[in-house]
Amino acid sequence: MKFYMPVLVYQEENVIWNHREELRQYGKKALVVTGRHSSKVNGSQKDLEAALDDQGIKYVFFSEIEENPSMETAEKAAEYGKQEGVDFVIGMGGGSAMDASKAIALLIKNPEETKEVFYQNKPLLALPVIAIPTTAGTGSEVTPYAILTIHEKRTKKSISHRIFPKMALLDSKYLSYAGEKITKNTYADILGHLVESFLHAKSDSYNRMCSSYGMKLWSKLCQPVASMEMTKEDYARLSETGMIAGMAITHTGTSLPHGMSYALTYEYQIPHGKAVGIFLPFFLAIYEDQEAVNEVLSYLDFGSVEEVSEYMKSLLGKVEVSHEDRERFFHSFAADTARHKAYPYSIGEKQLREMYEDALSVR
Amino acid sequence: MKFYMPVLVYQEENVIWNHREELRQYGKKALVVTGRHSSKVNGSQKDLEAALDDQGIKYVFFSEIEENPSMETAEKAAEYGKQEGVDFVIGMGGGSAMDASKAIALLIKNPEETKEVFYQNKPLLALPVIAIPTTAGTGSEVTPYAILTIHEKRTKKSISHRIFPKMALLDSKYLSYAGEKITKNTYADILGHLVESFLHAKSDSYNRMCSSYGMKLWSKLCQPVASMEMTKEDYARLSETGMIAGMAITHTGTSLPHGMSYALTYEYQIPHGKAVGIFLPFFLAIYEDQEAVNEVLSYLDFGSVEEVSEYMKSLLGKVEVSHEDRERFFHSFAADTARHKAYPYSIGEKQLREMYEDALSVR
Repeated sequence: MKFYMPVLVYQEENVIWNHREELRQYGKKALVVTGRHSSKVNGSQKDLEAALDDQGIKYVFFSEIEENPSMETAEKAAEYGKQEGVDFVIGMGGGSAMDASKAIALLIKNPEETKEVFYQNKPLLALPVIAIPTTAGTGSEVTPYAILTIHEKRTKKSISHRIFPKMALLDSKYLSYAGEKITKNTYADILGHLVESFLHAKSDSYNRMCSSYGMKLWSKLCQPVASMEMTKEDYARLSETGMIAGMAITHTGTSLPHGMSYALTYEYQIPHGKAVGIFLPFFLAIYEDQEAVNEVLSYLDFGSVEEVSEYMKSLLGKVEVSHEDRERFFHSFAADTARHKAYPYSIGEKQLREMYEDALSVR
Repeated sequence: MKFYMPVLVYQEENVIWNHREELRQYGKKALVVTGRHSSKVNGSQKDLEAALDDQGIKYVFFSEIEENPSMETAEKAAEYGKQEGVDFVIGMGGGSAMDASKAIALLIKNPEETKEVFYQNKPLLALPVIAIPTTAGTGSEVTPYAILTIHEKRTKKSISHRIFPKMALLDSKYLSYAGEKITKNTYADILGHLVESFLHAKSDSYNRMCSSYGMKLWSKLCQPVASMEMTKEDYARLSETGMIAGMAITHTGTSLPHGMSYALTYEYQIPHGKAVGIFLPFFLAIYEDQEAVNEVLSYLDFGSVEEVSEYMKSLLGKVEVSHEDRERFFHSFAADTARHKAYPYSIGEKQLREMYEDALSVR
């Protein structure tokens, strides 16, 4: 068994301002990596600028990270960071910005490399990364993963390098700006992380500590998220749950629902959390060790897998694909045996096909 | 809220051998810090020598760490380490050896300092420390604490410097050599860490994740430890529980039972775990928030505080002191208000006196 979680995590109101002095140790100039809009709307950009200005830390922004960021975008940002001579990278936003910031920090630190290095097994260091999540869900602020879109393979995959942020700064006040769809989708993504880690081939007592605790936190948010009547405490709990789910998958990785989601996101632009969430109940249904599934249900405070299914349907709606695409997704994933290793038992084609048929409606 | 646990933890059979290559990154020569006997008896010394020899890492032993190690012993070991020009320190044994190794690593790294620096607030670095616990209990392998005996103050206290081991190597096969008394005392110490962290003034959701999970693991060992009919799996669980309890106190520190135990250990040579354990039930009894106490009892699977009290008595036996000493201990602790800060409410003298009277028999 292995436990390794070297990220210094702070969670509180005004966290950026409170810990601004600690940013100085990472250098004199930062590249701040964000998406196009949200950090301007939710106030995080203003808060970060105030903190960096106060500490005399210079910074430049790269604010062109798209949802499901591509290798090309990460390379472009790294070029900018190299030109600007930055010492560290701050990824601020959702999983896209934080994941991209890790890949960018790798390329800036190794200026002789190009984007191909993302998926090569080379022992390389990266610039220090600071992660500031403004949505809860990916847990990227505490994971070493950086999932990029590989256009030539028409899918998404984590880069080969494990890059932990040095510090994660969580302030749940930003979460309330995310809107209903993002909140619900990321809430489903969190459940994916918790459940897939708990039922993973690599699962042991250490990640189960995080997963089981996270599931109990998650269950307390079922009603507030469904009705979108969220208190300040609910948002803080959501932020924490997403982070703890990140700690869980750091020790195992994700499993079938994540693996199955990527093609759906790539080809049908289904948001990541939704694409994961629609497969989850069917993953619980086919999972061989139903005693473990019952343990999961008890932490989540659901009476049955059917209840999970009903809840996720009401939360996320359905996903419609063509009959041909559903067949294609199924065959493609059935052939991708590397992704099956996360599942601790052998998977029959019949079960896999059932998961696709149950989760995806034909339009 | 803050989470920080940078120690790389491995737990498995033959852990030293399995991870011997990773030791090389810490240097070419190690100071191995142990007690006088146990590492020779339980096989850990032989295992470590084989691993270091295999990797061509040179080493010298300092095997004079006493129970409740003194500042003087740590200074003496550091002198030896300086003479030998070691690059890193391996603390192997119980809490005494591991705690001492941190203080020693600090002094070797700062050769201009003397033992007085242990309790000075200076921002100093230490040599890398590797922790190999051969008893379960202190959790020192994952905490930044190093508790030394201060003879001139007739007590024990953690040094002012927070020194996390770089790596903790846990192999529960060594635990079975510890014998009944050590096993039972350290088992009580673990409960102290779990409960005192959960009910600490600094307690938040992060350390409660570790504490609540650890209490559930702890409860499964009640019968095996009481009867000393321990399986291999029980020893592995004991090892894990002690480590997770260490993660919990890393985030909060300990509370009244630990604070009250130190004088008893110093003046009556009561083993640390036993000295903590006899105060624990009475701590639960006086604790103001009895709802939180009930949550603790539910994790531990005890029906009442009385049940905890009965169990601890049968596990540890009683502690007899003179009437005068009991009064003296009470007055001394009542005046030590710095130690009261761990308690989230105000403590009345009456309650404190009751804890002493209930826990300590007059002989």
